[in-house]
Amino acid sequence: KCMSASTINLAVIPGDGIGPEVIAEALKVLEKAVAAEGVGLEQTHYKLGAEHWLATGETLPDEVLADLRTRDAILFGAVGAAPGDTRIPSGIIEREMLLKLRFSLDHYVNLRPSRLFGTVGSPLANPGTIDFIVVREGTEGPYVGNGGTLRAGTPHEVATEVSLNTAHGVERVVRDAFRRASARERKHVTLVHKHNVLVFAGHLWKRTVDAVAQEFPEVTHDYLHVDAATIFMVTDPSRFDVIVTDNLFGDILTDLAAAVTGGIGLAASGNINMDRTAPSMFEPVHGSAPDIAGQQKADPTAAILSAALLLDHLGYAGAARKIEAAVIADVENRDGGARTTSAVGDAIAAAL
Amino acid sequence: KCMSASTINLAVIPGDGIGPEVIAEALKVLEKAVAAEGVGLEQTHYKLGAEHWLATGETLPDEVLADLRTRDAILFGAVGAAPGDTRIPSGIIEREMLLKLRFSLDHYVNLRPSRLFGTVGSPLANPGTIDFIVVREGTEGPYVGNGGTLRAGTPHEVATEVSLNTAHGVERVVRDAFRRASARERKHVTLVHKHNVLVFAGHLWKRTVDAVAQEFPEVTHDYLHVDAATIFMVTDPSRFDVIVTDNLFGDILTDLAAAVTGGIGLAASGNINMDRTAPSMFEPVHGSAPDIAGQQKADPTAAILSAALLLDHLGYAGAARKIEAAVIADVENRDGGARTTSAVGDAIAAAL
Ligand SMILES: CC(C)[C@H](C(=O)O)[C@@H](O)C(=O)O
Ligand SMILES: CC(C)[C@H](C(=O)O)[C@@H](O)C(=O)O
Repeated sequence: KCMSASTINLAVIPGDGIGPEVIAEALKVLEKAVAAEGVGLEQTHYKLGAEHWLATGETLPDEVLADLRTRDAILFGAVGAAPGDTRIPSGIIEREMLLKLRFSLDHYVNLRPSRLFGTVGSPLANPGTIDFIVVREGTEGPYVGNGGTLRAGTPHEVATEVSLNTAHGVERVVRDAFRRASARERKHVTLVHKHNVLVFAGHLWKRTVDAVAQEFPEVTHDYLHVDAATIFMVTDPSRFDVIVTDNLFGDILTDLAAAVTGGIGLAASGNINMDRTAPSMFEPVHGSAPDIAGQQKADPTAAILSAALLLDHLGYAGAARKIEAAVIADVENRDGGARTTSAVGDAIAAAL
Repeated sequence: KCMSASTINLAVIPGDGIGPEVIAEALKVLEKAVAAEGVGLEQTHYKLGAEHWLATGETLPDEVLADLRTRDAILFGAVGAAPGDTRIPSGIIEREMLLKLRFSLDHYVNLRPSRLFGTVGSPLANPGTIDFIVVREGTEGPYVGNGGTLRAGTPHEVATEVSLNTAHGVERVVRDAFRRASARERKHVTLVHKHNVLVFAGHLWKRTVDAVAQEFPEVTHDYLHVDAATIFMVTDPSRFDVIVTDNLFGDILTDLAAAVTGGIGLAASGNINMDRTAPSMFEPVHGSAPDIAGQQKADPTAAILSAALLLDHLGYAGAARKIEAAVIADVENRDGGARTTSAVGDAIAAAL
């Protein structure tokens, strides 16, 4: 590939639970796909996550973060302890590792495509054709960790959470959404927010969409309150083409979208720094699912599709399309019979 | 009824769009239901909403609020201008009237039952039995209007939204949820939040649930992140019995729940002050739907079920059950044919 490096310098963070199992399959497919393009794949594996924290007390040391910065991209499995595991302070791995990566590496485009392959697995009676992407803001909003507690544990406790939104942060992700819409067939952007209640943040988002829309006369756009958006997600998901929304609404909508399009086992995501000032990170939307870990029960499809998004980002669109085609063929032929995690990976790799 | 006044002193706020049409049917049913109990119904109608604002510039004057306080309960239709109406500043009616009522009258329990009557209208292929209630906090969280904008309209704009949560506010609504669960068959409470990210508010909610649960040994409880809760809402809604959650998550989840149980046309709600220091307010979850207003196309069922919640709150459980039974019989026999708003009201009133 003339436009890309001939070797991909890849960071791999398998993580906890089913993370290592699904990442093994994603690598199996990725290796075969890049080899077919004559591209090398150099892998550096990082031990991070709940297990690693239990063993070492480390979440994401500065040296590791610095080392990750030297890679072309990061393939990420899943992190998080079992819900009942009281040895690990709740949420610490998510915040001090996963969110720290997104924030430190400025992953402002949290890209989550939702596509229904056939009608496989949708809980909807009449899902119709579903093919949209959610461009979720990834570096601000209610995720900034800005808040506090006063008089904790007393009857007078007050707890706050502050959502921070900046013109800089909103504008770049909105422009990215319009750019992606412009390259799609329907060329339509839907802003999802709750500006009738969250006036300050909501109006910043709305004004920004109206302004950026001027740059893209070929793209139409509309607005939905987040509550109404969840209704359309189950009654008329075909209406969506590109959704742009804030960090928290995007978190909620993309899990719902994943469910509607056949389940979290198929939902891929990219945490993308479009300015390429740091490596982007690709991960399945699902979590570490400790209850089925190590049993070869997890569906590696979301991880494999995340590898395709990774290739897309690095400029190997042809290889990405081949992986997607192999996944679609595999998913559309599923008969509900149980296959092991590696059997699914083998089948998709074979179909490449 | 020995426990209740023999005349209900009712405030009626029909509002905008389809509000007046659906409220007319709710009153038709309510009047018949209370008459059968030998109870009087004294009505005071209030002109409030977007139309009223356009005519007078008033949202909710202090005198009107004071007058409303003298009533036993409020039956509310819907408010809000047409989305394209630029004469009305966006969200002003919602905030300065609807939310002002909820906050001023301390409606801390925003009660939203979700029940699937037959399988009528659910977009899910296999909805199963759905019968849960959402106890949404109604007086704090991200709805407090606490935030601001710095350098508006410049590339350096910063907009904040502050979610305020107090031990007082969280504890009383959590206790209400456990109390309601204790009176139900399955006796199960699910707290929905996002405590792995919204640490401060999330932990206040979680600690409060754990503490209040001690008072209700007969009630079981679990926890779901809001994103996961939306997945279960479409893959396994039967798992829910009583959901307790914050103002914004409750807003999102109840619209989704309404969609899953046959649509927003059936979803009732109560804005309840359990301490009875001010009148409670009952309203359909749907909005003013200006696009179909005045055409007798709106489904009055949600408004009628809201009147049943009103009777429940005032101590007329028998009359409330009769309305519910009449609604269920009507909904289960719907064949998809179009009926006018008043035909639906007539049918339900006749079935009482
Ligand atoms: C694990 C959690 C912090 C994360 C999020 O809320 O962003 C997850 O739900 C996701 O969507 O990637
Ligand atoms: C109109 C709006 C302010 C309101 C809310 O967000 O609470 C509505 O969506 C609701 O759920 O009653």
